[in-house]
Amino acid sequence: GLAEFVAAEEMDRQEGFWWSPDGDRLLVARVDVGPVNRWYIADPADPSRAPRQVAYPVAGSPNAVVTLLVAGAGGGSAVPVRWDSERFEYLVAAHWDAVALLIVVQSRDQRTMRVLEVSPQTGETRVIREDVDPDWVDIVGGVPRHLTDGSLVWTVDADDARRLLVDGTVVTPADLHVRGVLDVDGDTVLFSASSEPTNVEVWSWERGAGAVRLAPESGAGTFGARRSGATTVLAQRTLDSPAVSVTVIREQRMVAAVRSLAETPIVLPRVQQLRLGARELRAALLWPTGYAPGSGSLPVLLDPYGGPGHQRVVASQGPFLESQWFADQGFAVLVIDGRGTPGRGWAWERSIRGDRPYPVLDDQIDGLRAAAALHPDLDLSRVAIRGWSYGGFLSGLAVLSRPDVFHAAVAGAPNADQRLYDTHYTERFLGMPDEEPESYDRMSLALLAPKLERPLLLIHGLSDDNVIAAHTLRLAAALDAARRPHQLVLLSGFTHSTNRPSSANLLLLQLEFLKNALHLA
Amino acid sequence: GLAEFVAAEEMDRQEGFWWSPDGDRLLVARVDVGPVNRWYIADPADPSRAPRQVAYPVAGSPNAVVTLLVAGAGGGSAVPVRWDSERFEYLVAAHWDAVALLIVVQSRDQRTMRVLEVSPQTGETRVIREDVDPDWVDIVGGVPRHLTDGSLVWTVDADDARRLLVDGTVVTPADLHVRGVLDVDGDTVLFSASSEPTNVEVWSWERGAGAVRLAPESGAGTFGARRSGATTVLAQRTLDSPAVSVTVIREQRMVAAVRSLAETPIVLPRVQQLRLGARELRAALLWPTGYAPGSGSLPVLLDPYGGPGHQRVVASQGPFLESQWFADQGFAVLVIDGRGTPGRGWAWERSIRGDRPYPVLDDQIDGLRAAAALHPDLDLSRVAIRGWSYGGFLSGLAVLSRPDVFHAAVAGAPNADQRLYDTHYTERFLGMPDEEPESYDRMSLALLAPKLERPLLLIHGLSDDNVIAAHTLRLAAALDAARRPHQLVLLSGFTHSTNRPSSANLLLLQLEFLKNALHLA
Repeated sequence: GLAEFVAAEEMDRQEGFWWSPDGDRLLVARVDVGPVNRWYIADPADPSRAPRQVAYPVAGSPNAVVTLLVAGAGGGSAVPVRWDSERFEYLVAAHWDAVALLIVVQSRDQRTMRVLEVSPQTGETRVIREDVDPDWVDIVGGVPRHLTDGSLVWTVDADDARRLLVDGTVVTPADLHVRGVLDVDGDTVLFSASSEPTNVEVWSWERGAGAVRLAPESGAGTFGARRSGATTVLAQRTLDSPAVSVTVIREQRMVAAVRSLAETPIVLPRVQQLRLGARELRAALLWPTGYAPGSGSLPVLLDPYGGPGHQRVVASQGPFLESQWFADQGFAVLVIDGRGTPGRGWAWERSIRGDRPYPVLDDQIDGLRAAAALHPDLDLSRVAIRGWSYGGFLSGLAVLSRPDVFHAAVAGAPNADQRLYDTHYTERFLGMPDEEPESYDRMSLALLAPKLERPLLLIHGLSDDNVIAAHTLRLAAALDAARRPHQLVLLSGFTHSTNRPSSANLLLLQLEFLKNALHLA
Repeated sequence: GLAEFVAAEEMDRQEGFWWSPDGDRLLVARVDVGPVNRWYIADPADPSRAPRQVAYPVAGSPNAVVTLLVAGAGGGSAVPVRWDSERFEYLVAAHWDAVALLIVVQSRDQRTMRVLEVSPQTGETRVIREDVDPDWVDIVGGVPRHLTDGSLVWTVDADDARRLLVDGTVVTPADLHVRGVLDVDGDTVLFSASSEPTNVEVWSWERGAGAVRLAPESGAGTFGARRSGATTVLAQRTLDSPAVSVTVIREQRMVAAVRSLAETPIVLPRVQQLRLGARELRAALLWPTGYAPGSGSLPVLLDPYGGPGHQRVVASQGPFLESQWFADQGFAVLVIDGRGTPGRGWAWERSIRGDRPYPVLDDQIDGLRAAAALHPDLDLSRVAIRGWSYGGFLSGLAVLSRPDVFHAAVAGAPNADQRLYDTHYTERFLGMPDEEPESYDRMSLALLAPKLERPLLLIHGLSDDNVIAAHTLRLAAALDAARRPHQLVLLSGFTHSTNRPSSANLLLLQLEFLKNALHLA
């Protein structure tokens, strides 16, 4: 009845049980973590705290065995659901509505995904949809669903965009990239999509009316929505305001607005959106508050995430609060989304598959140079990079492999050793470690340790049970073995997130490191 | 039947059972660690390794409950040994010979020690000796013993030296400091002693002959010996040779020599012994090989231990191998034994009792200045300090509290937080943490963290189960909280000892840190 680690962390499936529409039966997952690798998460700064044993499916090792049963609410024996679980070991999603019970399963190599209809009575399944991709098939939120007439709502990658599919027919244009289905309300499909990757729009589709954007007059921004009973609640974030604007819509008319009572942040991001270089890399440039571009020379701080599944450059103020704070300390802060980031279609995301070297880092460098060509204020002799998680990995990679470009780096909770990260995420991009060891090697920072010649600050939470502290501790050990000095900050009691009151100190610590490393006053 | 943690670590008692002379009975310790604090020793760089739970009696907390039983070799019910264990919770030693079964017990505050004679038949005990000291009573190796006539062999602190005591009578001169009894062979007592703290001599005493030094013609050095059946094996180390010279003596004549087949170290320590300052601090000065004193200016590296129970400055080459290696890298290396170190009598050792501030550090500074007055080659504008364990603590204390004197420090496995160290060692010098909190505070480096303004390299083994890694990790966290940059090196798989092949790299890492910190070429 619970979601296993990779379901929750990598498939966005937080549930392990699903009620039938009339509440008389329950589809329930049985998760056997018996074969899964065991790790201990321990905090040696707090020796009285008992270490936690976790079942962590590390790349190349066995996953939890997930089976499904249909149980009656009144008790009695449960019916096992049967599918080719040898070939399709991942349970991606399940959905039970008045039309049918559907499950989505995926092969270990993630190149084949099937939608199966389950007979709750017998547990038999039949394939109603199969998608195949030479790299991997993406998991899309909110599908599968049914319309009331039984039509399957699904998505497909076609013409380099993700398209909405109703009963096998593509119903969205090729220049609109569907991000996910938000709700299916009767015969109306509410979904989010981008015609420009930095914007997230909300659209609805219904038969006859076709695909229509909600609130098109409101322009750029990132939108989210839910819909039920013909009522839509729409939330909009923009680059112009720190507040979230929430409106309630019925029959295409705004019927109410929800007032935001959020505090106004003391930092006000002023984001200059850019398209950089031949690839028109989406980027954001932030100057110190009050700085007049063209009036001087500024050290540059790249502040990327850069990895799959998460964009930094979106039309919303919130994600730039920390960036603006750093800018206000005297940096030109540049945030670039390169290849591999979502929202720009199939080929863009897949260009980071393991056997292609370093496109992510190349795009940071291309974007940096293009921005400096536009703005001579950017001093390319003083360039630092900072990031967390994948952004931490990217920062470490940058300073280790390209000291000609990067003069200092802050790597927070980096997934520095791909062999220590989980199955579903890592194998998607790098394959199996015993089959593609060179991809794993190329993406593991310890092998680059002897090359370090720039200041590097490593930060990791000792209670991180996602990107475990061993990523950083092993990189630090490799740096020590190569006698490359660096700064190591271990956060006792911190997990993978650093969103804590004490994080203010962590920002100051990074700032002082950067100022010292770049010889700023 | 096993020695508990503080017995093995702090009392030099490795045994938990003792046979009767005729082998028909066994005195056995029952160690109940139930009330003892539990800690986890975990190595987050190696998450698959199960953390080890240890019963660690941290200062101020309950010790293991140690009781004694006399068991018959043929089985049957054992006789419990009864003594005032409420007042005397430490079992220091036991000895069973033809004369009697003796045990030594000590109070929690270590200010009272009793020798008890045990009736193996009834378990009754009677006090045959009690020693009291306003600070603490030292545990001396090799006593109690008996002569064949039943005389008790013991030691006493008198006239500021430790004296050998036979049947209550002092039998050694006041200018000879007894270090320990090596063996009692019939009616001959073989013991080690110092007339000068840097030398360790071997003496014998027997009734009539009195105390006589063995091999007095061999001069300065550190001697060890064992004796049985009127045969003595004597081992000598000196400052003139890396080899150990071992001879066999019968009836005052050398009857054999044991050849040393040890490799000759590639580093040859050339130790200049000094007496520095008003206290005539024993010290060793090492120049770079081939350096002519008076010919230039050298950065200074202090290389102390400095704490209780261990001398660095002894007339033996071995302890100076690392010091000479550092000297050969371009340092004047100065090793100073200040107040608190053993071999110089009662008052010298006791001057570090918690309520007297920083004599240990003061003596390092006094010695440094006195050495620089003798040798202007010592450049007082470039002074570093390194050390391990207590020496690591001292190095950290030096750089944190006296940046006017010390320009860089390497603190290896420092006992940085006295509240994290064990009962028997810590309470001896600082009392109970709830009774003398200010002593604990004064000796804990984290409180000084905001003052750091010099380069500091912290090194700690993650598998250290004696001075646990939390000492260093909490100091590092305090430095991070105060945003004082430092270098942190964690050694995965290392315990408190760093004596491993990979330690060569650790020396180079320290060297490069020191060169960088002192701006050397």
